[in-house]
Amino acid sequence: MDALHKKISPSTVRMSSTEPSSNLENAMQLMIQTFHKYSGNEGDKYTLSKGELKELLTAELGNYLGNAQDKDAVDKVMKDLDGNNDGEVDFTEFIILVGALTVACNDFFQPEKKE
Amino acid sequence: MDALHKKISPSTVRMSSTEPSSNLENAMQLMIQTFHKYSGNEGDKYTLSKGELKELLTAELGNYLGNAQDKDAVDKVMKDLDGNNDGEVDFTEFIILVGALTVACNDFFQPEKKE
Repeated sequence: MDALHKKISPSTVRMSSTEPSSNLENAMQLMIQTFHKYSGNEGDKYTLSKGELKELLTAELGNYLGNAQDKDAVDKVMKDLDGNNDGEVDFTEFIILVGALTVACNDFFQPEKKE
Repeated sequence: MDALHKKISPSTVRMSSTEPSSNLENAMQLMIQTFHKYSGNEGDKYTLSKGELKELLTAELGNYLGNAQDKDAVDKVMKDLDGNNDGEVDFTEFIILVGALTVACNDFFQPEKKE
């Protein structure tokens, strides 16, 4: 992810308002909006504190992570995600969580997938 | 991503139909749907061939990747994504692309972000 992130810099991204958004573009916008809906509530507005992460997991991923309301589960997700151990989850760490969950969901609905 | 993917196995994911989908869950569903819309067209139905990747990039990310219709650009994205060099992009490789693009977009709209 870090390697690709370096290759795809913000300057690679060209916005155009002449085309309607595709489903994939909508998905990207929804992920950005969801992160900022919670990250701005306390402390650094561009990172999720443990409290903000718990709110996000409970409200936005309740259907997927049944035990997100369990404090130990939030602690574990925070520990797994917080790559630089600063007690905050930044946007890249959040996207890695959503990506991993999406891959898990895809596997779940694709049980006949060849290995 | 691989490490997290191992931690979040399909069995972690509990689906419940009693709650309406959140924005984040919709985003995850849109990414899964978009991949399979193209991956099923030819060859292995669970991977994107170079032709399928080009169709997906052109139709779904035209607003973001202005030059996706350029054959060299598709070759470069395919080379960057195809981690196991089999000439096909699997779902995990696709999610890494979408994640990297989403991080780039977030940076683009967050120019005042502290470093």
